[in-house]
Amino acid sequence: MKVRRSERLIDMTQYLLEHPHTLISLTFFAKRYSSAKSSISEDLGIIKRTFKTRGTGILETIPGAAGGVRFIPEISTEQAKEIVDGLCERLSEQDRLLPGGYVYLSDLLGEPDLLRQVGQIIASKYKDQKIDAVMTVATKGVPIAQAVSYHLNAPFVIVRRDSKITEGSTVSVNYVSGSSQRIEKMELSKRSLKRGSRVLVVDDFMKGGGTVNGMKGLIEEFEAELVGITVFAESTFSGRRVIDEYNSLLCVKDVDTHTKTIKVVPGTYFE
Amino acid sequence: MKVRRSERLIDMTQYLLEHPHTLISLTFFAKRYSSAKSSISEDLGIIKRTFKTRGTGILETIPGAAGGVRFIPEISTEQAKEIVDGLCERLSEQDRLLPGGYVYLSDLLGEPDLLRQVGQIIASKYKDQKIDAVMTVATKGVPIAQAVSYHLNAPFVIVRRDSKITEGSTVSVNYVSGSSQRIEKMELSKRSLKRGSRVLVVDDFMKGGGTVNGMKGLIEEFEAELVGITVFAESTFSGRRVIDEYNSLLCVKDVDTHTKTIKVVPGTYFE
Repeated sequence: MKVRRSERLIDMTQYLLEHPHTLISLTFFAKRYSSAKSSISEDLGIIKRTFKTRGTGILETIPGAAGGVRFIPEISTEQAKEIVDGLCERLSEQDRLLPGGYVYLSDLLGEPDLLRQVGQIIASKYKDQKIDAVMTVATKGVPIAQAVSYHLNAPFVIVRRDSKITEGSTVSVNYVSGSSQRIEKMELSKRSLKRGSRVLVVDDFMKGGGTVNGMKGLIEEFEAELVGITVFAESTFSGRRVIDEYNSLLCVKDVDTHTKTIKVVPGTYFE
Repeated sequence: MKVRRSERLIDMTQYLLEHPHTLISLTFFAKRYSSAKSSISEDLGIIKRTFKTRGTGILETIPGAAGGVRFIPEISTEQAKEIVDGLCERLSEQDRLLPGGYVYLSDLLGEPDLLRQVGQIIASKYKDQKIDAVMTVATKGVPIAQAVSYHLNAPFVIVRRDSKITEGSTVSVNYVSGSSQRIEKMELSKRSLKRGSRVLVVDDFMKGGGTVNGMKGLIEEFEAELVGITVFAESTFSGRRVIDEYNSLLCVKDVDTHTKTIKVVPGTYFE
């Protein structure tokens, strides 16, 4: 039975949102709704305009027999800035300050709605690049990686500091922790990354950059390629940072353990 | 400027999908689209019918001045079964078998589309219950928790086996690992769970149930309430399991390390 336009628009919107960065043929939708391709084409035109007006993203049209549509989630710099400004305020809350100048982030990194927005912001930056995998280190980087991975339609891989039997064979590297100057070890399951993969590195917090540098080393070991690095928050670091090129959504500028105040500003993402 | 129905339907669908288990007033939509409440009401009727027909979920209507609509994601048992059947096949792949009879799951737990579906399936089971937090243990439970958390609109909290300075003060419990009978320790940041919270426990894999039992202990320490337990996969366990009531999506039945074969069947979720 033919499906009405209103129903098609609702279901197509859902389907597209749930399949970002995926090429979907017009034939697929035409069959799904027992409708003519010309009607589907009109529907997609309406969705394309709405997604553009509302800042949801781009609906790419690929012409030809092997063509179709592809939804690319995108968030405008203004929208991203608004979300990050809100985060700056929340991060500056006094009771977030932990001994040693660390900042408590676990509550924020457990909020599904916030993670969705953070995922959209980070994925937006790499929307035009081919990403085969999103890499992060356990544990607090995982929610960020998962959110980004969803919006890029690429799997995520988790680097671990402790070996686990359930990972199978692993490849490990040693790295120097930037802030403590200690030598540490991290490893990744051997089968989790193919040679030549284009990898995006994300993490929750960067101080000296040692952990991120360790992941760079792992990417080399796997003969894969680093596409970019984005961290949720960075803190101003007095030493020499081992990582130069990266994006951060937030920058923890001044931590005063005496007055228990934190100053948080938008990060390099907006530069 | 008044927004046309087609555009309203597309944008409302997106908004509802991104805000599950959230009460949204008709006034909010009326303002957003500069449209009359009666038109919004009609739109919601169309969305409600489509969501029902397509198996997306329930659009609840709450009448009165403080009312509005609430989107409850739901997946039918048939849809869930189909997804789980596909997973049984993938889990039975020969090269997943690891030494000690463990099964390699990390690739599946890094696929965003699969996690979304798993999240929908688990969240569906608890759609009528009040859930304040989803709890899991680091590391591999995190992707499951995050996916479930999104569809229930409840934050997730991560229990850790290793203390980290970035967690602040923690509460810890000792527990007996069901399979190895060793005594281990797990802890949770003190500020991450409020007294009286209703908690759903999820994890990737359950053998003897010791880890899940540890989380039960933590929930008691926090004077919170356990609502339910669901694991992605369980394995048949020869000893006496310390956990009785739980759901599993998958059950790893026979692991033959000699012939390197695994038999995986749907879990107790479907019973």
